[in-house]
Amino acid sequence: MPTRNTSLDRLFRPRSVAVAGASTNVDSAGHDYVVSLKNFGFEGPVYPINPKADEIAGYKAYPRLADIPGDVDLVISCIPSNGVLDLVSQCAERNVRFLHLFTGRFSETGDEGAAQLEREIAAKAAAAGVRILGPNGMGLYHPAAGISFRPDLPLAAGGVAFLSQSGNNAVEAITRGAARGLRFGKVANYGNGLDITPGVMLHYLAGDPETTVIGAYVEGVPDGRGFFEGLKAAAARKPVIIHKAGRTQAGARSAASHTAALAGTAELWSTALRQAGAIEARNQEQLLDLMIGAALLPAPKGKRVAVVGGGGGRSVQSADACEESGLVVVPLPSEVRENVRAKAPQLADWIGNPVDQSILAGSGLSSNGLLELMLASDAYDIAIANVGEDWFFGRPDADERLTHACNRLAAIAKVSPKPVAVVLGATETPNLAHRVLVDKVRDAMTEQGIAVFPSPERAAFVLGKLTAALV
Amino acid sequence: MPTRNTSLDRLFRPRSVAVAGASTNVDSAGHDYVVSLKNFGFEGPVYPINPKADEIAGYKAYPRLADIPGDVDLVISCIPSNGVLDLVSQCAERNVRFLHLFTGRFSETGDEGAAQLEREIAAKAAAAGVRILGPNGMGLYHPAAGISFRPDLPLAAGGVAFLSQSGNNAVEAITRGAARGLRFGKVANYGNGLDITPGVMLHYLAGDPETTVIGAYVEGVPDGRGFFEGLKAAAARKPVIIHKAGRTQAGARSAASHTAALAGTAELWSTALRQAGAIEARNQEQLLDLMIGAALLPAPKGKRVAVVGGGGGRSVQSADACEESGLVVVPLPSEVRENVRAKAPQLADWIGNPVDQSILAGSGLSSNGLLELMLASDAYDIAIANVGEDWFFGRPDADERLTHACNRLAAIAKVSPKPVAVVLGATETPNLAHRVLVDKVRDAMTEQGIAVFPSPERAAFVLGKLTAALV
Repeated sequence: MPTRNTSLDRLFRPRSVAVAGASTNVDSAGHDYVVSLKNFGFEGPVYPINPKADEIAGYKAYPRLADIPGDVDLVISCIPSNGVLDLVSQCAERNVRFLHLFTGRFSETGDEGAAQLEREIAAKAAAAGVRILGPNGMGLYHPAAGISFRPDLPLAAGGVAFLSQSGNNAVEAITRGAARGLRFGKVANYGNGLDITPGVMLHYLAGDPETTVIGAYVEGVPDGRGFFEGLKAAAARKPVIIHKAGRTQAGARSAASHTAALAGTAELWSTALRQAGAIEARNQEQLLDLMIGAALLPAPKGKRVAVVGGGGGRSVQSADACEESGLVVVPLPSEVRENVRAKAPQLADWIGNPVDQSILAGSGLSSNGLLELMLASDAYDIAIANVGEDWFFGRPDADERLTHACNRLAAIAKVSPKPVAVVLGATETPNLAHRVLVDKVRDAMTEQGIAVFPSPERAAFVLGKLTAALV
Repeated sequence: MPTRNTSLDRLFRPRSVAVAGASTNVDSAGHDYVVSLKNFGFEGPVYPINPKADEIAGYKAYPRLADIPGDVDLVISCIPSNGVLDLVSQCAERNVRFLHLFTGRFSETGDEGAAQLEREIAAKAAAAGVRILGPNGMGLYHPAAGISFRPDLPLAAGGVAFLSQSGNNAVEAITRGAARGLRFGKVANYGNGLDITPGVMLHYLAGDPETTVIGAYVEGVPDGRGFFEGLKAAAARKPVIIHKAGRTQAGARSAASHTAALAGTAELWSTALRQAGAIEARNQEQLLDLMIGAALLPAPKGKRVAVVGGGGGRSVQSADACEESGLVVVPLPSEVRENVRAKAPQLADWIGNPVDQSILAGSGLSSNGLLELMLASDAYDIAIANVGEDWFFGRPDADERLTHACNRLAAIAKVSPKPVAVVLGATETPNLAHRVLVDKVRDAMTEQGIAVFPSPERAAFVLGKLTAALV
């Protein structure tokens, strides 16, 4: 019996890939997997398997796995479920290390025959030393290795690992995260998690030098102990954020029919995640916000927050959000106040933390200037900078002024050893020119690796969670 | 002594407006107010007051209020604070009913002299029968009457009233709300609320036939009893949503320096708002979401929710969100299941509520079809429809397919007597073509008055709040 692989290096970075059930139909997964390897510049051989086609997406096709001339590290399966047992045998014969089953319709259907077939596949693969990712999962996205489960995903590569039980959730996390500056490393959508469970992958990612931050979306875990051991190992070495779904009765019912997952109660999970050292997200939005905070911001040293920018209403709302997120809104220290007095004496006894941008008008002081003064003070550990873009829209030269303010803010945030979370609203305006402008300045900041959040509440939530363990 | 106005009709719909401190400088509020009246098509006479200019934005300018030939219903003041006492006298002489003080730097500065001046203005105006909106507020936005505090705001008119202590919060609520389909009626940013308090306005809006839904952002209320009486009167007749800010210590400190408001504790406010029949929002996002739900959705009759669309992960997340928001995720009733069996027998025992769109592929059933079946069933009171746009992006003809699906969904939602909350993600993708596409289908839906939310959590939150009082 071949030895069982303990490393997942060759899963995430295979030297060669075969696609069983590769298809010439451009509207099929069997076509997508092949085209994805092409689009992502996979450097090794790609072997589409299709008995009727000569080539697919420019790659020579083979009738069977047995006909492929070279070694195969990874087989991606898009064939129907009734062919998978035979495919496992073929993989064993060719000494294929990893088999990813995009193939679904197993235990998740609730059908006993389908669940039995899944168990037989697991047993046969285990005996043959073939490790299985899936079934019922989209598999791998790892741009640095040239592999993706969809041809249209972002090409940029980085160190953020992401494990997802759900395929559509993985796609959303990748695209939404990329739009906000996350650069992904090893991403796996593991579906039913038959063999390579999230626990197995967490163990692996804990020691993976490429991986700096780990996010995960789980509905249930097949191997509870392995999961929490993997989680503990990973969280001891890097930030790990977990979104546990299927917390409610209705959610658990839905999870069973999605990936046959047995979901647990919310409170037990929260406690267990905290004990393992993970950060808990309650929904996809929080998951992405926390991954962005953990990946893009320097590690915070404390909870004392400086807040600048936006008008008075925004200041009040930011203060509420900070305090309700466990941050400490420290009043302006005297050295900063004296600096203000030197430039704008009439404001020195009025201005506070948060800094209301609207009272600065005409004073020669800007909220970016205040941000610099406050970041330089020992009174603050972290900062939230509201851009307050709606004010700019009402002024002449809105484009130039907003761009200038954002460029300066980005320059400050980039060199600051203290985390600066930028707040720039979601692009919600009926004015199309304003939409384009907000998208432009946001893109310019995220491309520089600035952490941008659409509301002070979301920025404060992230900073609150990242500093929760600090005194 | 002139009688004191009890109706605010002529405040929100003045027949003539004078702008004291009108300016030829395009980068000033004194210019904005005049241009706004022009842009919004104000039908009555507009009188810029400026001793040095002949005309401003095409309107003949007058040196003093006394020089204006006709009656003046409303004076908007952009002059410095030290000229306001005299302006009140002039208003009294000309029998001006309403004076809006954009002018600030009164009690909000924390300066005792400024606070004393504010009190003198209040006393003098009360004695003279001149009612004051502000000071330190941007004033009125009422597109149906041709009045706005900024020239660049949306022109579309409707029945959603909005009261805001904060100017920048009012601008954000108007633009963000408009982008999502809200059509505003009477909007006032009342700043320090010296005379025309939110309580006075709530009393008025309660009986205002134009107003169908009321939203308000308050930091503190100068007249607690009047506020809650006005609130009770309004909430008895139409949905009223209140965002109380300055709930925390830091928030209350910030509110004092913003609009001199005395803010109270969070729990007392929550209780009082509930007892008055209002719906409480905890931040601007919730405030807008709730206003959209109240304004655009038919009134729900119960908490039993049908959820369709999106993949399995989205289904599990939607179920969690619904149950955690107090909704009841009722399993698929047998009549719907039998309808599914007739078309797709292999799915009949697998499919559930939420409906996982990904398992419908190739079955001849769509999530829109399921939505129609579920809306027709007595088992459901309300629905959440996930568009699941990321799936479409991965397919050929994404534009055509997504547009078709959204058009059909909009047609279903529009005629449904049960509320259908649509979930279409925020435009977060690095793919610019996808951004344009999502914006396009979202705009098409909101223009038809469909309530669209960017996540299932936010849709569920709104439906939970709107049905909280139902059994």
